[in-house]
Amino acid sequence: MTKQFQFTIDKKLDGTMARAGTISTPHGDIKTPAFIVGGTKATVKALTPEQVTDLGGQSILANTYHLMLRPGVDIIEKAGGIGQFMNYGGPTFTDSGGFQVFSLGVAYKKGIDAVASSERGDANKARKSTNQLVNITNEGVHFRSHLDGAKLLMTPENSMEMQHKIGADVHMAFDECPSPLADISYLRESIARTHHWADRCLGIHQKLNEQNVSAGQPKQALYGVVQGARHKTLRKESAEYLGSLDFDGYGIGGVFEPGEIASTVAWVNETLPEDKPRHLLGMGSQPADLFLGVEYGVDTFDCVAPTRQARNGALYTHKGRVNIKNAKYYDDFNPIDGKCDCYTCRNYSAAYINHLFKSNEMLGATLASIHNESFVVRTVDLIRESIIEGTFFEYKRTFLTSYYGDGLPSNVTL
Amino acid sequence: MTKQFQFTIDKKLDGTMARAGTISTPHGDIKTPAFIVGGTKATVKALTPEQVTDLGGQSILANTYHLMLRPGVDIIEKAGGIGQFMNYGGPTFTDSGGFQVFSLGVAYKKGIDAVASSERGDANKARKSTNQLVNITNEGVHFRSHLDGAKLLMTPENSMEMQHKIGADVHMAFDECPSPLADISYLRESIARTHHWADRCLGIHQKLNEQNVSAGQPKQALYGVVQGARHKTLRKESAEYLGSLDFDGYGIGGVFEPGEIASTVAWVNETLPEDKPRHLLGMGSQPADLFLGVEYGVDTFDCVAPTRQARNGALYTHKGRVNIKNAKYYDDFNPIDGKCDCYTCRNYSAAYINHLFKSNEMLGATLASIHNESFVVRTVDLIRESIIEGTFFEYKRTFLTSYYGDGLPSNVTL
Repeated sequence: MTKQFQFTIDKKLDGTMARAGTISTPHGDIKTPAFIVGGTKATVKALTPEQVTDLGGQSILANTYHLMLRPGVDIIEKAGGIGQFMNYGGPTFTDSGGFQVFSLGVAYKKGIDAVASSERGDANKARKSTNQLVNITNEGVHFRSHLDGAKLLMTPENSMEMQHKIGADVHMAFDECPSPLADISYLRESIARTHHWADRCLGIHQKLNEQNVSAGQPKQALYGVVQGARHKTLRKESAEYLGSLDFDGYGIGGVFEPGEIASTVAWVNETLPEDKPRHLLGMGSQPADLFLGVEYGVDTFDCVAPTRQARNGALYTHKGRVNIKNAKYYDDFNPIDGKCDCYTCRNYSAAYINHLFKSNEMLGATLASIHNESFVVRTVDLIRESIIEGTFFEYKRTFLTSYYGDGLPSNVTL
Repeated sequence: MTKQFQFTIDKKLDGTMARAGTISTPHGDIKTPAFIVGGTKATVKALTPEQVTDLGGQSILANTYHLMLRPGVDIIEKAGGIGQFMNYGGPTFTDSGGFQVFSLGVAYKKGIDAVASSERGDANKARKSTNQLVNITNEGVHFRSHLDGAKLLMTPENSMEMQHKIGADVHMAFDECPSPLADISYLRESIARTHHWADRCLGIHQKLNEQNVSAGQPKQALYGVVQGARHKTLRKESAEYLGSLDFDGYGIGGVFEPGEIASTVAWVNETLPEDKPRHLLGMGSQPADLFLGVEYGVDTFDCVAPTRQARNGALYTHKGRVNIKNAKYYDDFNPIDGKCDCYTCRNYSAAYINHLFKSNEMLGATLASIHNESFVVRTVDLIRESIIEGTFFEYKRTFLTSYYGDGLPSNVTL
């Protein structure tokens, strides 16, 4: 019989909110803490699914907003769901599209920077503009496609219907992601709407799951998404309300600086029910995020920064980020990172990857993406191991000292 | 002990010049006829070496001209040769750079079309301009880099020295590739120069090989390159002269239409010594080329057209070439080619690949390149099989009838 969604805590780390666990899905298990690989448009940029699995990726997260625009969710449903469509057999997540409706809707025709920032996590960049092209009502959000300007409406109901057509194992409730700069009265209004939408998402999701069950299909899981910007009262209120509902897990949404993880994420996770998994949406471009997130109770992460940076030649090493296009790599026959055992570092020199980037050869982006994605996936896997072995703080200190040197982000204590 | 270069004929096809053979090199065997995969800049565009091997590729051909400009041959030598540099363990070829000096030198700053035509095989397009930026003397060729306009000189001696630094298993002699439209008196002068250069190439190559042997390294092989445009007398004269020299094999250079293979290649191969392998330089964008080439005595091919076309979404099928970006593939859940068993066709639908191309996702180019390269490699592998089993003409008829339908190129008889 196919497995249903389930979360088990394997080990807790005394004196922290960190835990090692297992998320079971109809497409296999995810050992947590885990870094979920970004597959926004039903493809992990520049990588085959085999390369994703080979680098240690346990699961992929795609985006409802992008997929509704192209190729359209009906095509993915006809293909047999996103796993079949993209030839990936492992567990899959979809983000609801809520964040993108705001960031990309707003960003429409405002230039490439905003579009490049379409995934959660680069929100500060994307959200500079006002919401003038987005019209929010209690029904849902009217917005324009960033591809062709077409007028569209996204509601809790159609986001859930689309996510069921896409058919990932884990869905996110449709939420409003307000600007972190919005005033408190707007944030109160926004959070009430997000909670109202969460009720509606849960209602339609349960109906769609009943259809799954009658068709002999496994149920799909739904995470509620906690908002509340930087306000302790709002974050706790949101976590408490959503935590009381029958969600399978929780996303932590919104926009904040890495340094704020220790406060914002802590407020949320000390309030959410302990026995359900928590996903920090779109954060992970800084290794410090990963350690702090776990310490304050996060089970899974997703972030497209590692592969985006890889395509630009910015590569992670245990001594910090380097630019592989730099002339000093021209004749450096060592791997990018001597301590890394990914496919790229096992088989290619920095000199070769420098050559590929200088020559605009596509294989450069592939090898760099394998390396960066492997780096973050492996870092979180080792965080899991350190929780089980009780060596988390030792690992955190060693890793962050080596990575940041003198440039450790403020608010990170070792 | 490391194998030295050697060619064995395994089977001949009665009534034709076709033969199945084995080229042994220090990096393994090539079962011929074989399609050599294009790796111009020390990378097969969009593919890892494992993907090249997995699709059936037996060997890679890189280009001295491109590599001398970037990254420079000294870096490749320091890396331990091209195989080490690019992480490819199989047999490797280098083209001499002769053709590119003319086509890219001429094309410098003349726009993208000419640069895109830099590999042998698109020569008609690249060679429309006159040779005004190229100055040919008996010493060698003075030309300008297409990257930055720098003044450079390529001679038989430095081409050989550079090829030895690159360290492929098989080198090509430095030749002049005149315009097919040049008058007969120029062609006579040109061919005399190519033969003079061939002598000099052989001289320095033998010296460099002696150094290899003293250093405990295997010898590298050198092919002479037959020229003579469309002139029977010149082609035969060139094949006879070069055939009398101690080359390990022969390249057939120049520029001609697919329909001319049956004449031009036949003149050359009926003259060349039978016991040495023959490589048709830069031809293979039309499957008919492959059948005609083999029928008239060609053992190996190289051509970058399959992967270049793949990146543009032009995909080979047993019923001809299709454009995967066409709207009809939007909801086509069949593989690109139902008769193809490549990685792409086994695992992905046309609809998914259409989505990747529409979304400008890099994985599209990778999957398309695997398919097209596999298609030509497999076609030539099956030609080999058909020679051994005596079913060549049956296979040729079936394949070409299905591929071209009513559009069979003139001069191809079935």
